[in-house]
Amino acid sequence: VTLWINNRLGARLDARDRGLQYGDGLFETMRVCRGRVRLLKSHLERLQAGCRQLKIAAPPLPALRRELERAAAARREAVMKLIVTRGSGKRGYRPSGRERCTRILALHALPNFAPLPVRVRLCTTRIGINPDLAGLKTLNRLESVLARSEWSDARIWEGLMRDVEENIVCGTMSNLFVRRGSTLMTPLLDRCGVAGVMRRWVLETASDLKLHAVQCRLRWDDLNQAEEVFMSNAVVGIRSVAVLERGRQRLRGLKFDAAIELRERLALL
Amino acid sequence: VTLWINNRLGARLDARDRGLQYGDGLFETMRVCRGRVRLLKSHLERLQAGCRQLKIAAPPLPALRRELERAAAARREAVMKLIVTRGSGKRGYRPSGRERCTRILALHALPNFAPLPVRVRLCTTRIGINPDLAGLKTLNRLESVLARSEWSDARIWEGLMRDVEENIVCGTMSNLFVRRGSTLMTPLLDRCGVAGVMRRWVLETASDLKLHAVQCRLRWDDLNQAEEVFMSNAVVGIRSVAVLERGRQRLRGLKFDAAIELRERLALL
Repeated sequence: VTLWINNRLGARLDARDRGLQYGDGLFETMRVCRGRVRLLKSHLERLQAGCRQLKIAAPPLPALRRELERAAAARREAVMKLIVTRGSGKRGYRPSGRERCTRILALHALPNFAPLPVRVRLCTTRIGINPDLAGLKTLNRLESVLARSEWSDARIWEGLMRDVEENIVCGTMSNLFVRRGSTLMTPLLDRCGVAGVMRRWVLETASDLKLHAVQCRLRWDDLNQAEEVFMSNAVVGIRSVAVLERGRQRLRGLKFDAAIELRERLALL
Repeated sequence: VTLWINNRLGARLDARDRGLQYGDGLFETMRVCRGRVRLLKSHLERLQAGCRQLKIAAPPLPALRRELERAAAARREAVMKLIVTRGSGKRGYRPSGRERCTRILALHALPNFAPLPVRVRLCTTRIGINPDLAGLKTLNRLESVLARSEWSDARIWEGLMRDVEENIVCGTMSNLFVRRGSTLMTPLLDRCGVAGVMRRWVLETASDLKLHAVQCRLRWDDLNQAEEVFMSNAVVGIRSVAVLERGRQRLRGLKFDAAIELRERLALL
């Protein structure tokens, strides 16, 4: 892994940074393909929206964009992670409003993965409802850590998380799509969950595939009626789900049509 | 502020630390009085319980206790903050189980405060319900940051936070107590909120004051019927609330009897 802090090579961060102290920051995990950051515009837009919501003074976007493009240019394939924190400050939750944000950029080797259908389980760890943080990819990720710690079976790729009202919200690291006929459903993220940039791309691309995309509340029973289920994230793209499991319950026989079409389109980006 | 990382003087942290990446860690904020850490045993017990819950391999407690005692001995009055993270690791939410925890110790000057009755407001930022994290003082504190950012009026000391079901859970940095006659109520923290060590001390001490302590759900209407309201945290101890406000609503005329008695007992520790 290669690390830059505020555009300087290095891995040492001020321990007073509010990113560590309070998780007071945001991040983007991006896929580098052939030296370019895939969906970079969407990543920067989400970052900017998050900074606005948290009242973090974002780094100037043109300069940040150049920084990311320059780092990506050296790599054919990689995972790029950008963290933006509110920066260092005095003790106490309240920001002074004068903090200068910290950006931490990391380039990682791309993990091995094939676009094969995956197994997905239902997690018991809940995702807390907080409308003020809904949709944002904040540094407060303990719920994802606990949910991802629930299983160690390497054959299971992902776990679905529910809120305390039993609505399925997202995976620990991906978003969920459920197709019935020409209706493509994905959980509404108005109260919790991370609104992935790949989710956004799927929602924007659905109509090209003659799919009607809707954001709605989804429960386990809705999955029982699915014809197709897939997950999305910025690094892996689209992954078809072959088996969905909740304890001893197994949902199988799912189709892969829409995911295959989406992956073909994604490859052209 | 003086900082030690893993018992070595310094403020530079590995940016790959999961404390920064995911808020994957816990902290304790302690009061140093006359060279000693107040309620140190409770702080270490809570830290240990939190590490167990998050499956973080905690630092050996006897050595950690000596570290804190040694740092405190040099100071008459101070605020001591200890962060324990899961440590550095590879990318991905799932801990390998082989991480070595990082401890970050900071000594801050004690802020000025008098034990005067304070004004407290009701925040609009909600606190997410997550039973797996309830009671723990984790590094995921964005909700507290947003709630504390709601007001800048220096005359208001604290804000109360509610869950999405309108239950009042705690302050942004303190716990709530409400007295009616000889019944002392504090919110039940089984679904969210931080269980403060000073809250624990009050619950343990109540019977000495002939108070019957109960943990229960509390709503704004329950505060309307309060005779006395006070807040607690490890640094300031016990603070009486003189005025409680929700928008233009004001609750005044509260008594201070139990808080005064508790403060007298606390001074003997």
